[in-house]
Amino acid sequence: MSESEFDIIRKYFTDIGQTPEALILGVGDDAAIISSPADQELLIAMDTFNPGVHFPEPTSAYDIGYKALAVNLSDIAAMGGEPKWFTLALALPELEHNWLQEFRRGLSALADRYHLKLIGGDTTKGPLSITIQIAGYAPPHQAIKRSGAQVGDKLYITGTLGDAAVGLELCQQGADKYLSYQQDLIDRLNRPTPRIEVGRALRTIATACIDISDGLAGDLKHLLVASQVGAKLETGSLPISRSLQQQIPVRDEQIQKALYYGDDYELCFTAPANRADDIAAIHLQTGCQISLIGDITPQSTVLIELDSENKITNEGFNHFT
Amino acid sequence: MSESEFDIIRKYFTDIGQTPEALILGVGDDAAIISSPADQELLIAMDTFNPGVHFPEPTSAYDIGYKALAVNLSDIAAMGGEPKWFTLALALPELEHNWLQEFRRGLSALADRYHLKLIGGDTTKGPLSITIQIAGYAPPHQAIKRSGAQVGDKLYITGTLGDAAVGLELCQQGADKYLSYQQDLIDRLNRPTPRIEVGRALRTIATACIDISDGLAGDLKHLLVASQVGAKLETGSLPISRSLQQQIPVRDEQIQKALYYGDDYELCFTAPANRADDIAAIHLQTGCQISLIGDITPQSTVLIELDSENKITNEGFNHFT
Repeated sequence: MSESEFDIIRKYFTDIGQTPEALILGVGDDAAIISSPADQELLIAMDTFNPGVHFPEPTSAYDIGYKALAVNLSDIAAMGGEPKWFTLALALPELEHNWLQEFRRGLSALADRYHLKLIGGDTTKGPLSITIQIAGYAPPHQAIKRSGAQVGDKLYITGTLGDAAVGLELCQQGADKYLSYQQDLIDRLNRPTPRIEVGRALRTIATACIDISDGLAGDLKHLLVASQVGAKLETGSLPISRSLQQQIPVRDEQIQKALYYGDDYELCFTAPANRADDIAAIHLQTGCQISLIGDITPQSTVLIELDSENKITNEGFNHFT
Repeated sequence: MSESEFDIIRKYFTDIGQTPEALILGVGDDAAIISSPADQELLIAMDTFNPGVHFPEPTSAYDIGYKALAVNLSDIAAMGGEPKWFTLALALPELEHNWLQEFRRGLSALADRYHLKLIGGDTTKGPLSITIQIAGYAPPHQAIKRSGAQVGDKLYITGTLGDAAVGLELCQQGADKYLSYQQDLIDRLNRPTPRIEVGRALRTIATACIDISDGLAGDLKHLLVASQVGAKLETGSLPISRSLQQQIPVRDEQIQKALYYGDDYELCFTAPANRADDIAAIHLQTGCQISLIGDITPQSTVLIELDSENKITNEGFNHFT
């Protein structure tokens, strides 16, 4: 390998995404320079993305680039933010130009779509690992925290749940050819849709919001603990895609996937009961399915009450257990 | 291991550093929220830090935490910035509480000293790797880029060069006990001093600046290429510490260390010849040694002319060769 880390950054990563109006200096100096917009708050999130943990080993370079940015965009979506720029720390076991080209294409696809710019980063030699820090903006006091849910609020979820979990099972089983609904599930795993438009529209409507990375049960728990409330979840209302229904016909098994498996990157949010019309309008405006799945209840020893069981016992996916 | 990634962040990393006035929401939500100062530009740098590459394997957890933040602070120093906050992506092979405590102590020592706050991050299981993204501020148009050096400018360096390289050799050779000047050299490797105060003072004085991470020859080359100029370097003026002189008495060998070995995190900068008094004042004000080491010359095929040899042949440390 003859190329230096400087050449890698210059060759593959200097012109990813569109230049935000605020960028004064991008990749290539000791730091990037950005002019701070006076009337906005800055939102900062960081996610690391490793093979075997965050994506199955055989995932394509395109999908790795795509998903690494998508999961970070999802954090900005969950805050109601407008994504603006990101930095990339890339550890690579070796310099493979095809891999870098494809990784770059996947990253660029989402960067272009959401008008955000790669402004800097670092490349090192080591086991494959991708860390992205993303920044977005929101008007003052409008970013949606996890901690604002109130007793009496309604509980909503975007899109459908459990698809990525079943997509992962399909990848792990392997096959020469997948049926089209199976490919849909695998696409949901590899190319999750960050719900940027919904998050932005929820700014003055939602009282709390979190994105589903580790499973609804676990992530909802974080929202409830932060808000010091409980929830009653109607499992019958959990949105299950047609593709998942075709792959797994038993409703109870669908519900298990929806509750306890992650990687869906849908938004789980709460809103006052009288904002139902606004939420219906967001559905119409964005085309994104939004389902009412429960109610926020007073804090008690049972954090999440289910209609089918009596409490949540599993806390969702945990990297260290 | 029974602790989840959420507990690691909460337990070790929620209260590192002082809260900048601008922080609205720190660790624990999908993103941190920061109010943008209207009259400042934002500086963003990111560095990854891996065992065997960026520090020798037996480095203590304290020193790993310290140095990981120091090298990022050095990037902000090189831009003339005021550091404000950082995020941390930490990959750990296993949960070792003593290691985490010590790592946290090292990180906190510098965070406290420079009044900057850890506002978020991600913890994953994997081979040890530390990625920090740091943010600082500078008044509009005052951040010091690499690209502003002018023909006729003088070339300066802070501190002394080559210490970390010799410290690394000492670590690699190993010993039961080190002489005090040897320990000084090892400390220079493990606990570099980010030149924040000097960088800040250089804002309206320096025309270009870079920090020495990969060796003076290689890093100066980046500055010269960005500025489209050349340099004549007086190797006789390269600052060598007493400790290094004690360990390596031969001047030519000292110069080799100073030119071609990295990890010193000193600032190499250029300034107009008529600002010499201002630079002397910065030395007095900060207590930091600043040495005149050469001149900026017109661009030619020889990028760096040395008095002892005829050109720079080695481009400094390269992660991929």
